[in-house]
Amino acid sequence: MGSQKRSPAIILVQPQLGENIGAAARVMLNFCLHDLRIVNPRDGWPNEAANYMAAGATSVIEHARIFPDIESACADLSYMLVTTARPRDMEKRVLTPREACAEAFPIFNSQSNIGFIFGPERCGVDNDVIALSDAIISVPVNPEYSSLNLAQAIALLCYEWSLVADDGLTKTSSSPVGAIASKESMLKLYEHIEAELDKRNFYSVPEKKPRIIRNLRTMLGRAKMTDQEVKTFRGMLRSLCER
Amino acid sequence: MGSQKRSPAIILVQPQLGENIGAAARVMLNFCLHDLRIVNPRDGWPNEAANYMAAGATSVIEHARIFPDIESACADLSYMLVTTARPRDMEKRVLTPREACAEAFPIFNSQSNIGFIFGPERCGVDNDVIALSDAIISVPVNPEYSSLNLAQAIALLCYEWSLVADDGLTKTSSSPVGAIASKESMLKLYEHIEAELDKRNFYSVPEKKPRIIRNLRTMLGRAKMTDQEVKTFRGMLRSLCER
Repeated sequence: MGSQKRSPAIILVQPQLGENIGAAARVMLNFCLHDLRIVNPRDGWPNEAANYMAAGATSVIEHARIFPDIESACADLSYMLVTTARPRDMEKRVLTPREACAEAFPIFNSQSNIGFIFGPERCGVDNDVIALSDAIISVPVNPEYSSLNLAQAIALLCYEWSLVADDGLTKTSSSPVGAIASKESMLKLYEHIEAELDKRNFYSVPEKKPRIIRNLRTMLGRAKMTDQEVKTFRGMLRSLCER
Repeated sequence: MGSQKRSPAIILVQPQLGENIGAAARVMLNFCLHDLRIVNPRDGWPNEAANYMAAGATSVIEHARIFPDIESACADLSYMLVTTARPRDMEKRVLTPREACAEAFPIFNSQSNIGFIFGPERCGVDNDVIALSDAIISVPVNPEYSSLNLAQAIALLCYEWSLVADDGLTKTSSSPVGAIASKESMLKLYEHIEAELDKRNFYSVPEKKPRIIRNLRTMLGRAKMTDQEVKTFRGMLRSLCER
């Protein structure tokens, strides 16, 4: 892998069927993506069905990395999008696959790591994953039959990515984007604020705490802070919280 | 089917795996196509694996039509395209899926019947089928790993078709979901933070103060907060600043 070109990460959260993981690996390689990450696969790893369905794309399967949770899977990413249905109670931008790739490519091209997240086959990702993401990708499908196969959804995304990425190679990058802070440092920022709020009993109704946290993360995530901004913001926080 | 809208035909020539036929039916319905035609399926018809993989798209499978040869399968079509590798010894135009759908849609829209042909999994269509077709569709893939799964190729085509056919109808909106807070309430938020920082002598070097303030406003401005988010954020601030 060391000599390979950089690639966006495809992150599968709790995938159920090895067949889908293998089909995902195959179509990733069809479109020149190779960074496959799997969070907590239902049937363990390695997976025979995945190997079989990957056909010749064994290099993607062999180099796939397994993570225990989404936070560790995306620690080195600066920008990530999640394919899911539109959530009811969160302020999150919704992009088509084409819009998503157009938005993601300049960020990737400025040397930031990016990822595309896909939830489990039957239920989609939970709201905490959505809160961590920069925007949602929603494939425009038949409203009366919207259940897209997991590997098919990945195929569409990889296809759109390759069209943008191939095109982008010949295009000069328009507006330079500063390097966006990693998800890891954003997570530390969130946890910093949340811990301080906890000390002050801000979450008076405990049941509301997860939603408050999600909304805060969603809101600050939209700011796409640079590392310097995160540093300054945390300095401000420390100052504000002095007693 | 009688009451359904017209649809381009998806024609599978000698498909081998029922799984691929089923996956094709599913993704066709995802993108509002329903006219499936199968020429001489290897394992006969009906096919249990096809039924299983079609998931809820049983209507497409039940109405699929079986033909003994390509000529009868496309007898009623006025225009057809075939997905295959570029032939060596034939003068045939080659289109990407996007170009193909852009070219095909006006023809379909003028009440002509059109079809997209896909060959068997391992070998592609023979030259007679190419000769019958108006042009070739070639998906731009990794030249070092170009073997696209049959159902994936169909997915990409159906996806591109739906974008051309439903332009504007089923597209998801990319605009922010809620109303963005007024500049006035953002200014109050900024002044709130800045005053608290002032109380704590955060601006140790006075000349740097204007720049710090500008950077903070720039950063939070990018989050495009809603009124509710500003309210919540100011509540958090009050809590954090309690002494």
